[in-house]
Amino acid sequence: MQDTYGELIASLAKETDTRIVMLVMDGVGDVDNGGKGTALQQARTPNLDALAARSALGLHVPVANAVTPGSGPGHLGLFGYDPLIYQVGRGVLGALGLEFPLEKRDVAARLNFCTLDAVGNVTDRRAGRIGDDVNRRVLQKIRDNLKCPVGVEVLFETEAEHRALMVLRGDGLDENVGETDPQTLGVPPLSPVRPPHENSRTAKIVDDVLKQVHKILADEPKANMILARGYAKYPAWPTFAQRTKLNPAAVAGYPMYRGVARLVGMSVAATPTTAKDVCIEAGKAMANHTFVFAHFKYTDKTGEDGDLAAKIQRIEEMDAALPHLLAARPDVLLVTGDHSTPPSMKAHSWHPVPVLLAGPHLRGGDGRHFDEVSCRSGQIGTIPACHLIALALTHAGKLEKFGA
Amino acid sequence: MQDTYGELIASLAKETDTRIVMLVMDGVGDVDNGGKGTALQQARTPNLDALAARSALGLHVPVANAVTPGSGPGHLGLFGYDPLIYQVGRGVLGALGLEFPLEKRDVAARLNFCTLDAVGNVTDRRAGRIGDDVNRRVLQKIRDNLKCPVGVEVLFETEAEHRALMVLRGDGLDENVGETDPQTLGVPPLSPVRPPHENSRTAKIVDDVLKQVHKILADEPKANMILARGYAKYPAWPTFAQRTKLNPAAVAGYPMYRGVARLVGMSVAATPTTAKDVCIEAGKAMANHTFVFAHFKYTDKTGEDGDLAAKIQRIEEMDAALPHLLAARPDVLLVTGDHSTPPSMKAHSWHPVPVLLAGPHLRGGDGRHFDEVSCRSGQIGTIPACHLIALALTHAGKLEKFGA
Repeated sequence: MQDTYGELIASLAKETDTRIVMLVMDGVGDVDNGGKGTALQQARTPNLDALAARSALGLHVPVANAVTPGSGPGHLGLFGYDPLIYQVGRGVLGALGLEFPLEKRDVAARLNFCTLDAVGNVTDRRAGRIGDDVNRRVLQKIRDNLKCPVGVEVLFETEAEHRALMVLRGDGLDENVGETDPQTLGVPPLSPVRPPHENSRTAKIVDDVLKQVHKILADEPKANMILARGYAKYPAWPTFAQRTKLNPAAVAGYPMYRGVARLVGMSVAATPTTAKDVCIEAGKAMANHTFVFAHFKYTDKTGEDGDLAAKIQRIEEMDAALPHLLAARPDVLLVTGDHSTPPSMKAHSWHPVPVLLAGPHLRGGDGRHFDEVSCRSGQIGTIPACHLIALALTHAGKLEKFGA
Repeated sequence: MQDTYGELIASLAKETDTRIVMLVMDGVGDVDNGGKGTALQQARTPNLDALAARSALGLHVPVANAVTPGSGPGHLGLFGYDPLIYQVGRGVLGALGLEFPLEKRDVAARLNFCTLDAVGNVTDRRAGRIGDDVNRRVLQKIRDNLKCPVGVEVLFETEAEHRALMVLRGDGLDENVGETDPQTLGVPPLSPVRPPHENSRTAKIVDDVLKQVHKILADEPKANMILARGYAKYPAWPTFAQRTKLNPAAVAGYPMYRGVARLVGMSVAATPTTAKDVCIEAGKAMANHTFVFAHFKYTDKTGEDGDLAAKIQRIEEMDAALPHLLAARPDVLLVTGDHSTPPSMKAHSWHPVPVLLAGPHLRGGDGRHFDEVSCRSGQIGTIPACHLIALALTHAGKLEKFGA
């Protein structure tokens, strides 16, 4: 798929000294809660209100109408990469979440421990959701006994419960490997070496590894096999700096978000987690960077926990911390989320996400509270997430005119 | 054209037990009538109002901005098929409207009776708009005298006035036939066998048929020839069930709408025409189907008749009938139209169409009356018609997350 818009913006971007901050309150969007409004509607946010009164408001659609994004696609969109064009395999996303130092030649895969019966059929695709401790012990057993194919290293990392990461490291590896999860029970795992993968050397390596693992784990009661899918190499995309002429830095306390930032070539300036520290560190990073991506995790975490009161509190914490960031005087400040995480759903959702853009050259008539309903009628309108960075660039005087 | 969005949604759809109903009030959209508002604005609709107060509102664009849809494209959009990608030839649409049992090997064409002068030039492209009775008589004359080419059946059906359907049935036929309507007067009909169609066996068959028809109708005063266009085979598209994992049924009293539903693989559960019967039958169909398309014709018919008062009355009839449908408790209910049919225009129009979505996971702040103006500022926004089914799927818990 051609990235017409992204290439247009890249062709117009120019380097200047103005500074842009994108403050991402992860999963900040919500739905109504029993007629009392969303978390943002219910939160008391005097600083955000004052900012909203002199800002442009709107909504962004993270991936596409009705589509719920994972964290990877959600952030790629915010960084200006259309998530439907710039797709990352699950293996690489897993590696990012663990901050695993992937090399360009690596192939990463997502593993699930599973349970096979005596004749080799899958009876539980998640191995009874074993605990992290079992996961670690069993992975170590594999590491201790596996004989690596010549010229290849095979690395394993625990994610959580039944989930793990496998990385093949060596020259000439590719992603052309069959997924082995049969997606159903009562049948054996699929072979990684099957059409159209039957001539892939990498598929044969994976097959060898999986056959060894089957033997190594034969006496395990639950986690006696692994299923592998989402084989992926580190993508070779144009960097954020190349596309925007910005000098970017990430300020993020959680590995996944640093990982997505590194995926597009951002360096990591600091790893704060609290609202106050995120704002202070973002302000500091502005000294050496024309773009700062500042990530606040707890609005998503409280949403996933189904804890509306806590989500409101986290929003109010960020509101209270905001003056630390405003004191650093960004030329353009975007405040938004990567997706919605309604506490009533305890999960990410597809709902469009509030956006606030503080900067020069605005129109009036927008609402005076930063929330889903007032943003709906704001001057930004409802636009794709991957257009936001261009909007920030142009407000910051960093986009040339198109045509004469 | 690649169906990126449709394929994305198909890749995320999963089967669950929740049930979706799409109630289509054909041509429901309107424009203002002398400052008194649209038909929906003027209608007294207590049940729709109550539903609107707990629903998401918005507008959909049937095909593209400024483009007026026919009934086929209008409904294909509602079923999630981008009408610009999934185009149906006029011949097939004509067959659907007559509920003609097309086979996959058939080639259907739209016929117009026309008048030729003594030297064979077209003098009237619609044969003076002959009545249906003349149409039937002349078609029977053709049937009685035509010698079908070997291996091919040629079938004719009256549509109305000067319009008819021709179906070639046989193995190995194709759509590669020239349209014979010259689209102007004073020239002869075009030959179906002309570049780039000169090597098509089907074009030669059509040529033979048309030459025979010319002789058979030589002594007719008005309808002494036919013009053929829109040659089309039944399209081989992925079915609605394949794309959505829904088990769909159509409830529709008019052949055209059953035809479009069958075109995407829906079965027909009932054929009611009144508002009350449409709602009752849709409720019944929910017992065995996870998706019900319920079609109400009279909001379009009254619009085409230019009868605003009658259109308002038909809307009020549907409002009164709505509790019969609500009693069946769909998990997600969409109420919308396939296009607008303003009585002041007596025709379909391009205006975006009101949408109401009742379901879980909603935001507040929408209007409390289901009409074109309140829908404009609703939480759904203004979206392409072909995204609505995805929105219904995700509200019904039937779409997986995109990416990790």
